[in-house]
Amino acid sequence: MKFIHTSDWHLGRQLHNQSLLEDQAFVLDALVDMVKEHQVDAVVIAGDVYDRAIPPAAAVNLLDDVLHRIVVELEVPVVMIAGNHDSHERLGFGARQMLNSGLYITGPLQREFQAIKLTGKNANAWFYPIPYVEPATIRHLYDCPVSTHQEAMSVLVEPIKAHDSQGLPKVVVAHCFIDGGAESDSERPLSIGGADKISPQLFEPFDYVALGHLHGPQYKGQEYVRYSGSILKYSFSEQHQNKSVTLVELDHEGQLITELLPLPALRDVRIVEGYLADLLVAGKADENANDYLMVRLLDKHAILDAMGKLRAVFPHVLHLERTGLMNSNTQLQRAKDHIKKGEMSMFEDFFSQVYGESLTPEQNKVITNIIDSLHQGERNG
Amino acid sequence: MKFIHTSDWHLGRQLHNQSLLEDQAFVLDALVDMVKEHQVDAVVIAGDVYDRAIPPAAAVNLLDDVLHRIVVELEVPVVMIAGNHDSHERLGFGARQMLNSGLYITGPLQREFQAIKLTGKNANAWFYPIPYVEPATIRHLYDCPVSTHQEAMSVLVEPIKAHDSQGLPKVVVAHCFIDGGAESDSERPLSIGGADKISPQLFEPFDYVALGHLHGPQYKGQEYVRYSGSILKYSFSEQHQNKSVTLVELDHEGQLITELLPLPALRDVRIVEGYLADLLVAGKADENANDYLMVRLLDKHAILDAMGKLRAVFPHVLHLERTGLMNSNTQLQRAKDHIKKGEMSMFEDFFSQVYGESLTPEQNKVITNIIDSLHQGERNG
Repeated sequence: MKFIHTSDWHLGRQLHNQSLLEDQAFVLDALVDMVKEHQVDAVVIAGDVYDRAIPPAAAVNLLDDVLHRIVVELEVPVVMIAGNHDSHERLGFGARQMLNSGLYITGPLQREFQAIKLTGKNANAWFYPIPYVEPATIRHLYDCPVSTHQEAMSVLVEPIKAHDSQGLPKVVVAHCFIDGGAESDSERPLSIGGADKISPQLFEPFDYVALGHLHGPQYKGQEYVRYSGSILKYSFSEQHQNKSVTLVELDHEGQLITELLPLPALRDVRIVEGYLADLLVAGKADENANDYLMVRLLDKHAILDAMGKLRAVFPHVLHLERTGLMNSNTQLQRAKDHIKKGEMSMFEDFFSQVYGESLTPEQNKVITNIIDSLHQGERNG
Repeated sequence: MKFIHTSDWHLGRQLHNQSLLEDQAFVLDALVDMVKEHQVDAVVIAGDVYDRAIPPAAAVNLLDDVLHRIVVELEVPVVMIAGNHDSHERLGFGARQMLNSGLYITGPLQREFQAIKLTGKNANAWFYPIPYVEPATIRHLYDCPVSTHQEAMSVLVEPIKAHDSQGLPKVVVAHCFIDGGAESDSERPLSIGGADKISPQLFEPFDYVALGHLHGPQYKGQEYVRYSGSILKYSFSEQHQNKSVTLVELDHEGQLITELLPLPALRDVRIVEGYLADLLVAGKADENANDYLMVRLLDKHAILDAMGKLRAVFPHVLHLERTGLMNSNTQLQRAKDHIKKGEMSMFEDFFSQVYGESLTPEQNKVITNIIDSLHQGERNG
């Protein structure tokens, strides 16, 4: 059984207000080529397929197209789960009508665990998709007193451990935060205060655990408990990460070989630092001047339209920091503003998911005020 | 070939801020029973499946459930098109993966017309689904100069007329406004100034034309060019309509028998008029006091909490008109306010469809101001 493990596509995501749809289409083209080239038996997508509950229609179109090429044209089955960014109901629509086509989408968690037996050219294997769930969902669905993600996942994993796989390898697909995993700036925390952490030991009884959530490729505990990482760099903090998908091979006995297949990017995401005059000279000779850039300007004097000047040589400067000008206070304030924006957009997502409509201007104002007064309290407290 | 023709489910719609999801689930339960009882060979849903581009997650769940029961449990194929209320991309997601299951969803229009041959117990037939499209889409897709819906539909119908059906009956499924059709208050106009009207003659070459858009069941021109109407009364103006689905039988030669199967409602939608004291007495004896009501009070004096008093006997009074108190000026102003709200919500739908995100408070304000100033102009002009 040879399959590609990927996750965190975040279709529809923006980087500093720049749509990344073109970049996403580019890297997914490359992924479809890899599916073909490596003649894999399956593709596993471990959640956060979309960036938000209600993705733009163009992102829906892109996913539809990529899945069609893999599932129908290449006839390679896809196992896909909802992550914490996805709307489980929306992603899961029609899932039961798609099963026969080889597209296995797991949206809302069902009481019975799912087991999918896939046929490989050399060996078969069982796949167990577990969508992202809050502990409260498990409490409600199984009527049992769980409060942490660790307890919730234990409940879900128990029957899968017990499932008779007729000696075939067992692959779990999940979206969660493994204790000790390396975080990136572009992940949305699953809960506050560490209650989201899951011990890697929980997954030891399986032959491979295809994880999503963390955006850097990595494994924790055992080499077979693995994050593939996201398909693109979704924050400047990821500038030094090498994005990839994981090529996984499992034989009859569950013997494992993994290989990271590097993903190409239409434009890289990186930070450049220097004085304006130096950067403008360097930019003219930079054959990757088209990359998405954060520029840190060291100049200590005011500069008229620094962004305009930079964009003349680096057309995709997305963010400019006047490191030379800023004192530590302003930097702190900027960081706070950034966090505030995050909370508001998280709440908007939550609200539209539950009510199916967006905040009215009045509601928006009320929530903004609440968040502001919480921060006020933080500053005063 | 025996099939049920229905349309305009408008899942997720509200009536005067009252969610109708429970009512929609009730009537669709009845529809699933009819599919079983009449042993039909197919179900046709002629658009406006959802009420808006981004329906609430609960509406997505309901549709998923109903389609599963018809397509998988009863093994009856479903042909479904996007209407003017649906997001074509969102409704069409995964459509190509669902084909094998017998679920035929047509979201965005493709250049090649679609032809689906369905097998009936007594006779087979061809189905040609045409999703709702703006003339501009046809202009772009076929690079031809059409400006009206009539011209656009002619372009779409031409190759279907020419298609060799091997002598089998041809059924067109479309969502449009046939000239002379009877409108209801709950339909959203397709365009302004009559450019949305299509002559029924355009559809004469076919054996049955299953239409959606108008909410009252009716036929135009020929008896086989037919609207099934909506599944519920979506405005008080529809209080006297009898909602139904159309049971259609076509034999080998295209001989047609149609029958209207009445749809039950969990709660009726009706208008009652009278003096408060009389209504309160009548309500106590009314075994349908649970219906959704608009009440027109004839009393000419002020009444403290009339709504509260009425709801003690009619729990679902959704709207109260003080006909006795209002002068014609106020009535006019109310009507204007109603229209304004419609334009804003139409624009919000349009915006979120195109951009995949909702209006910011600032954007909302700008649009509200524009609509207000247009109306100001109307009043002054």
